[in-house]
Amino acid sequence: MEMENGSSPAKSWGFRANPELIMSSDNTVRGVLYMIRSKLNQLDTRPIIPLGHGDPSAFPCFRTTQVAEDAIVESLRSAKFNGYSPTDGILPARRAVAEYLSKDLPYELSPDDVFLTLGCVQAIQTIITVLTNPKANILLPRPGFPHYEAFAKACHLEVRHFDLLPDKDWEVDLDSVNTLADENTVAMVIINPGNPCGNVFTYQHLQKVAETAKKLGILVISDEVYDHLAFGKNPFVPMGTFGSITPVITLGSISKRWIVPGWRLGWLVINDPNGILKQHGIIDCITAYLNISADAPTFIQGAIPDILAKTKDDFFLKIVNIIKDCANICYEGIQDVPGIICPTRPEGSMFVMVKLDLSIFVDIKDDVDFCFKLAREESVIILPGMSVGLNNWLRVTFAIEPSALEEGIKRLKAFCERHSKKP
Amino acid sequence: MEMENGSSPAKSWGFRANPELIMSSDNTVRGVLYMIRSKLNQLDTRPIIPLGHGDPSAFPCFRTTQVAEDAIVESLRSAKFNGYSPTDGILPARRAVAEYLSKDLPYELSPDDVFLTLGCVQAIQTIITVLTNPKANILLPRPGFPHYEAFAKACHLEVRHFDLLPDKDWEVDLDSVNTLADENTVAMVIINPGNPCGNVFTYQHLQKVAETAKKLGILVISDEVYDHLAFGKNPFVPMGTFGSITPVITLGSISKRWIVPGWRLGWLVINDPNGILKQHGIIDCITAYLNISADAPTFIQGAIPDILAKTKDDFFLKIVNIIKDCANICYEGIQDVPGIICPTRPEGSMFVMVKLDLSIFVDIKDDVDFCFKLAREESVIILPGMSVGLNNWLRVTFAIEPSALEEGIKRLKAFCERHSKKP
Ligand SMILES: Cc1ncc(COP(=O)(O)O)c(C=O)c1O
Ligand SMILES: Cc1ncc(COP(=O)(O)O)c(C=O)c1O
Repeated sequence: MEMENGSSPAKSWGFRANPELIMSSDNTVRGVLYMIRSKLNQLDTRPIIPLGHGDPSAFPCFRTTQVAEDAIVESLRSAKFNGYSPTDGILPARRAVAEYLSKDLPYELSPDDVFLTLGCVQAIQTIITVLTNPKANILLPRPGFPHYEAFAKACHLEVRHFDLLPDKDWEVDLDSVNTLADENTVAMVIINPGNPCGNVFTYQHLQKVAETAKKLGILVISDEVYDHLAFGKNPFVPMGTFGSITPVITLGSISKRWIVPGWRLGWLVINDPNGILKQHGIIDCITAYLNISADAPTFIQGAIPDILAKTKDDFFLKIVNIIKDCANICYEGIQDVPGIICPTRPEGSMFVMVKLDLSIFVDIKDDVDFCFKLAREESVIILPGMSVGLNNWLRVTFAIEPSALEEGIKRLKAFCERHSKKP
Repeated sequence: MEMENGSSPAKSWGFRANPELIMSSDNTVRGVLYMIRSKLNQLDTRPIIPLGHGDPSAFPCFRTTQVAEDAIVESLRSAKFNGYSPTDGILPARRAVAEYLSKDLPYELSPDDVFLTLGCVQAIQTIITVLTNPKANILLPRPGFPHYEAFAKACHLEVRHFDLLPDKDWEVDLDSVNTLADENTVAMVIINPGNPCGNVFTYQHLQKVAETAKKLGILVISDEVYDHLAFGKNPFVPMGTFGSITPVITLGSISKRWIVPGWRLGWLVINDPNGILKQHGIIDCITAYLNISADAPTFIQGAIPDILAKTKDDFFLKIVNIIKDCANICYEGIQDVPGIICPTRPEGSMFVMVKLDLSIFVDIKDDVDFCFKLAREESVIILPGMSVGLNNWLRVTFAIEPSALEEGIKRLKAFCERHSKKP
């Protein structure tokens, strides 16, 4: 008996927290970064260097284009987009996304292939939920993006991990895909350009992925939230190019290319010229899920045609060039840091995976210990590899203002030197 | 073996649609309205009269206040809110919501009591998911708002329905609440002002609800998305008033009071001065769920302090007066429509429940048949009571431009007369 109210006694309270939720969210990037930030030393007066998450929007050099801001203002002021949105998104916005993506494809997407979502995150949640079935399993990359695991756990969809190969430019280990898949496998996920690896898949490799998926009878989910953020030898090729080999669902958003992750506008796009997904009821099921889900704000959808059509190449070029410079600063800087090995120069996205050589440190237990101590001693935030599936690696975000990045690498170096065994 | 691609044969495809999703979304208001709209006669040149959903934003007389538009533009142009939001929402917005709601409460809310959501819909999804547990059940009102049932179904949370009593101003049948609840009951939901009934609960009735919940050891979830849209004898009283009797979670949004449902900004608020929910892990679990969920766009959150603090009473008064006039036009108009009985004059929200007397019609099978035929013959959209839990009733939205409402009632009358048995 509890007596919270002082008056008549209540019977004991009947509600309990959902135990699975706590488990599935602990391991999101956001969850882990909260933990690391809690280690920061409040007495350190130096600015915090955020090398932990893919959101450079706070830095003036990464401010989005005025074209995009103007488009939102105009859409809002028109008062035409204050009402509820239809389930799939408003038609002009779906048409604009179809046209935007078709430019890089060997066939034309229709607006009906496009579902607007609340950023790429909701697109992930949608496709994971839609594919959930008793006994089904899904193949996810390791290292990867933990939201996939979190949603799969929440839905009770079994996860199997295939490896990305650091010695082969982080390509998919297709042998392990073949070994892992069975008759209950529904899909495999790739992320291209790669988070967390900073790689960009070649045309040839993507074609092999499609052929493997076809042989296995599975869908390819291609997370292209970093589309066009490619600045190395391989150009960005959308997986939808191979949609006639095997059905492909592309997930994307304006978060990264326009540097507006807070605007929450993304898409889930069907690249399936043979209509296999429709035939199998997947399209209706996506609509069913979006029917009960929150929509992207209508006036943001209303701005999408102008954002996609009117943004100048200058802007894209400027952003990619800054990120490329950052990638190089990061890669070269890390060469001088003891105990950290960077297998390949990053060529895309905003991240690079680097390996810890724990043997050279006096008092670092593992990647998490490393990140906790680094936060406390140097006010530098880095994501431990554990949270993307590779223990004793780190995921370093290089997409921040270059001078801040240089400062971050300097502190990282000082930290590693201080904790190294004396020769 | 299928041969979609013409080249090498794929094994049969391994993916299947999630069967439960289709079921849980069929019965949302949105799903049912899509079906009814599909019956419209394209040859009818008269404007469609939308008495089906709670979104009057398309009518010029319901345009939102410029204060709200300006706040969004300013927030966007500041470029301070382009980045990802923290899980619970940005602090200034949470603080603003706490202050806004505290004005009507006997105690002060703290910003930590407030979680920002993507409209009230995401707040519903959050609390249903958080309370899900094996064997748990939740008590929902009949008639009600079908999103609760949809999310509960998707989570496998058992639903039990208590009645709202048409002869008692749609008050909660507390006897049936007492009978339905058992040791696995976690919460009861009320919607006040009422959707679909158009009623407003008295202070005394809400207090009884709180005392009943306390006795049963359950939480009260109070959906106040229509807060302040009260224009009859009972003033709007927030359920949080009784948060020291039993824990109350209030769900709300700016969708209805500001007539901007497309902006998707809502909240889930803890009214629990005794800290019982925290003690039971419910607060941590809400954070865990929001950690993996999409957030409200950050720049919309950034506008909330100004929207809540600067909107003039004039605007609210104007909107409530129009809605009140509409409620009266609707109530009085329906008195003259054969076969439709309206138990009480609506006093809040945007809806009224009316009962069909099927015995007077020649060829109307039930409420769904009524709504299908009405759409086809008169281009008037009304929601069948089936979809809110009462067969052979209708939910009529009166919150539309008054002249359109009058036209709608006229067509409704013509329809009912045409289908009536000749005397
Ligand atoms: C691989 C990957 N997918 C999806 C997302 C989510 O993107 P959005 O901001 O569009 O929801 C991210 C964000 O960092 C990401 O790295
Ligand atoms: C009772 C009730 N709750 C919640 C909602 C959803 O509101 P929002 O637009 O804030 O998501 C509605 C919308 O019609 C409603 O009627």
